[in-house]
Amino acid sequence: MKKVINKPKSVAQETIEGFMYAYKNSHKKLENVNGITRKDLKDKVAVVIGGGSGHEPLFLGFVGEGLADGVALGNVFAAPTPNTIQEVSKAADSGKGVLFIYGNYAGDVLNFDMAVEMLEMEDVDSRTVRVSDDVASAPVERKEDRRGIAGDVFVIKIAGAAAEKGKSLDEVFEVTQKACDQTYSIGVALSPGTIPDSGEPTFTLADDEIELGMGIHGEPGMERTKIMEADKLVDRLMDSLLNESNVGEGDEVSVLVNGLGATTLMELFIVNRRVARVLEEKGINVYDMDVNSYCTTQEMGGFSITLLKLDDELKELHDASATSPYYKK
Amino acid sequence: MKKVINKPKSVAQETIEGFMYAYKNSHKKLENVNGITRKDLKDKVAVVIGGGSGHEPLFLGFVGEGLADGVALGNVFAAPTPNTIQEVSKAADSGKGVLFIYGNYAGDVLNFDMAVEMLEMEDVDSRTVRVSDDVASAPVERKEDRRGIAGDVFVIKIAGAAAEKGKSLDEVFEVTQKACDQTYSIGVALSPGTIPDSGEPTFTLADDEIELGMGIHGEPGMERTKIMEADKLVDRLMDSLLNESNVGEGDEVSVLVNGLGATTLMELFIVNRRVARVLEEKGINVYDMDVNSYCTTQEMGGFSITLLKLDDELKELHDASATSPYYKK
Repeated sequence: MKKVINKPKSVAQETIEGFMYAYKNSHKKLENVNGITRKDLKDKVAVVIGGGSGHEPLFLGFVGEGLADGVALGNVFAAPTPNTIQEVSKAADSGKGVLFIYGNYAGDVLNFDMAVEMLEMEDVDSRTVRVSDDVASAPVERKEDRRGIAGDVFVIKIAGAAAEKGKSLDEVFEVTQKACDQTYSIGVALSPGTIPDSGEPTFTLADDEIELGMGIHGEPGMERTKIMEADKLVDRLMDSLLNESNVGEGDEVSVLVNGLGATTLMELFIVNRRVARVLEEKGINVYDMDVNSYCTTQEMGGFSITLLKLDDELKELHDASATSPYYKK
Repeated sequence: MKKVINKPKSVAQETIEGFMYAYKNSHKKLENVNGITRKDLKDKVAVVIGGGSGHEPLFLGFVGEGLADGVALGNVFAAPTPNTIQEVSKAADSGKGVLFIYGNYAGDVLNFDMAVEMLEMEDVDSRTVRVSDDVASAPVERKEDRRGIAGDVFVIKIAGAAAEKGKSLDEVFEVTQKACDQTYSIGVALSPGTIPDSGEPTFTLADDEIELGMGIHGEPGMERTKIMEADKLVDRLMDSLLNESNVGEGDEVSVLVNGLGATTLMELFIVNRRVARVLEEKGINVYDMDVNSYCTTQEMGGFSITLLKLDDELKELHDASATSPYYKK
């Protein structure tokens, strides 16, 4: 796959530079690190997100009002450095502490935990929520071992709203962790993305093959099978998703149908149509639906379906206004 | 390329059904035709847009406050039928008339013109602006023969703001036509999209080849050449774009870097970085930049650069608030 880049090693940095030309009025780039904060930081708990580059608009595009206050970015598919996380946190912290949100991957856990220790020495309080929504990556008894995929969006949304309301760090942590615990996703891969450094595909699949449950970096899923009609595919995915979650009849959910890169909005709408019908058949109430490509892996083909199980507290935070360059509510 | 669809012939209809599950609170589907209007229609000039499906989020995603009031959709890459355009117009018209905006393609011109005649017989006034921003499709002396690509976004934005301000049909037409006349785009194709009906690619390009100026349906461009570094590619495109427009030193522009489908936001930011620098070097003032994938052709690889040359009147309309499922200002 052809890529519109200059030098492979400068991709992450040039991505941020290009972003800043468009959003310099609302965002601030930190010196010397691949980190960005809001310009209008407030006297409240700071929400700091981060992860590898290459999944745009996550995480870069989710800094804004009612969302994250800062983002620490790594190279493509690589965790941000502890130093980057530390610098972003110090810039975003108003003295009320930092809530970290990132996908549950070993490299991110290592580097964010190291940053937490470094920040403690500088008297910056923090709490951490690791997003673990991918039901295909571990059984329901080990929910905390699951990987984070598009569910990041809901978790960031809830945290941003809670922080904006002036809640304490512990309060923001509690409600964000609850949102994380009640967020469930399942994905399907149709075709690989390309690693910009090497030009290599992230995995291989035959022309008529798809993989249910595959992770966004090509991590193994549940089953390789033949491509099938959209409705049948959605039915299969929804069965697994509902089996591996605590969502059932009478519950109320917010739904995100997320494209992984090359899968078109047209196809995502066709998926969403079936998701809505399945939920209706199961007696699960749809509170809200969002169809977009927020968490991508380059031009990977495929999509994921995410459910956030709502209660009254989460619903209020879910509905609060939020706006960033690539998200609005 | 694998597609997540059911029956090829029902793609356009199921796309709209899936859209409506997500946006039923704000949008209304018309019976029997592939057309949608806002629910909260106002007593003002109606802006009606349309074109073939398959370019999502255009046109479907641009119905909303400060944007379009209704959209008429055809099958994939096919103009909407005159009947669809007529029904959408009658639903959207408050008695103050309809401004049509669509890309300048033969099929669309034919069907919209037929709808205009049918509406005249029912005493619905209308005016038409055909978007003609693609500088690669005709020389500057024949601006009105140029095809419409991502420039649709700016033209719809200006029209929507003018209509929302309560201007008359003639006034909305005048300022929208001015915006159209001052909108210039150039695209580059890296790889084809797939026609959902047939599974066939929209064109062919060698693995190391790109085509400067190619249209969004694979219409011939200016030159096939080898893939090159992003900065060099942008320099080439900006040269052609500025040569074929009336934008020059001291002018003020709003910029849209638009992805065609599979080209990632990461790459679009790298493109935007260079576009900003070239404009700075040329003494052209950047008023605003937007980096997104609004006008796509399935999973086509490539991007376009659009400039809207601003004056005070256009700037005010450009800045007016607007919100739809896939656009906000």
